Amino acid sequence: MLGNTYEDQNCSAARALELVGERWSLLIVRDALFGGITRFADFQRSLGIARNILSARLDHLVKAGLMERRQPEGSPYHEYHLTEKGEDLKPVVIALSHWGDRWAAPNGPPIIYRHVGCGAHVEQQLVCSDCGQIVANTQVGTHPGPGMILAS
Amino acid sequence: MLGNTYEDQNCSAARALELVGERWSLLIVRDALFGGITRFADFQRSLGIARNILSARLDHLVKAGLMERRQPEGSPYHEYHLTEKGEDLKPVVIALSHWGDRWAAPNGPPIIYRHVGCGAHVEQQLVCSDCGQIVANTQVGTHPGPGMILAS
Repeated sequence: MLGNTYEDQNCSAARALELVGERWSLLIVRDALFGGITRFADFQRSLGIARNILSARLDHLVKAGLMERRQPEGSPYHEYHLTEKGEDLKPVVIALSHWGDRWAAPNGPPIIYRHVGCGAHVEQQLVCSDCGQIVANTQVGTHPGPGMILAS
Repeated sequence: MLGNTYEDQNCSAARALELVGERWSLLIVRDALFGGITRFADFQRSLGIARNILSARLDHLVKAGLMERRQPEGSPYHEYHLTEKGEDLKPVVIALSHWGDRWAAPNGPPIIYRHVGCGAHVEQQLVCSDCGQIVANTQVGTHPGPGMILAS
């Protein structure tokens, strides 16, 4: 957890960062989402971080409801599985990857996201719920929603 | 900067977090993207953080090429403006907001993203570049891209 200093921010992005913004947390989620990793030792091998840090991050992800800890019958190992809440971070990880592909990948994208159905690239787009058009970044505005009105 | 401990991660999401994953950085970008904030005092008012932390974050965003520092002629104030690289984080902030709206907004979304053209909600979707279908989270797979092949 990042601490409670985002708590005055009535903003869903800030609340999301409060739960997953701590260092390594989103990379643990990435490994679970796209690497199929479930075991402590495999997360550690992938991330190369200290056991105590990994342990704290996994505990926090479990406590925040993003992962579940399971121990399969007869296995000496705990496994960590994403919940629906954790799985739902896939678009966040993909958005970060697309940005990194464009701005921080001098050798080209290390990973391509593809459509399981047909094998082609998957792109993230903003789509208008009414007119169905693809919406350019510059054509996105904001207005207050119910959470803002209730809070004020 | 988060430090250099993500540097062994050949992953665009990790590289993105290396540049914008530090606490408050994405909320500064959010304020610039959607609040039109450009001045130090206005960022401080919005975020409620210490001057030295805000100063360090803005300096880092400038150094990383996400913002430009300008001083309009005749003005005593510096302004901070997003570059194209910074503006391009809009889908990341929107993805975090959508997740937070769903999982961490008990009173409903505080902010609604809307299509400037028609006023309807903007949704983030994964779209197949070939077949044009909207791709469900569960239908996204990965395969190695050029950056992975060159690195191995």
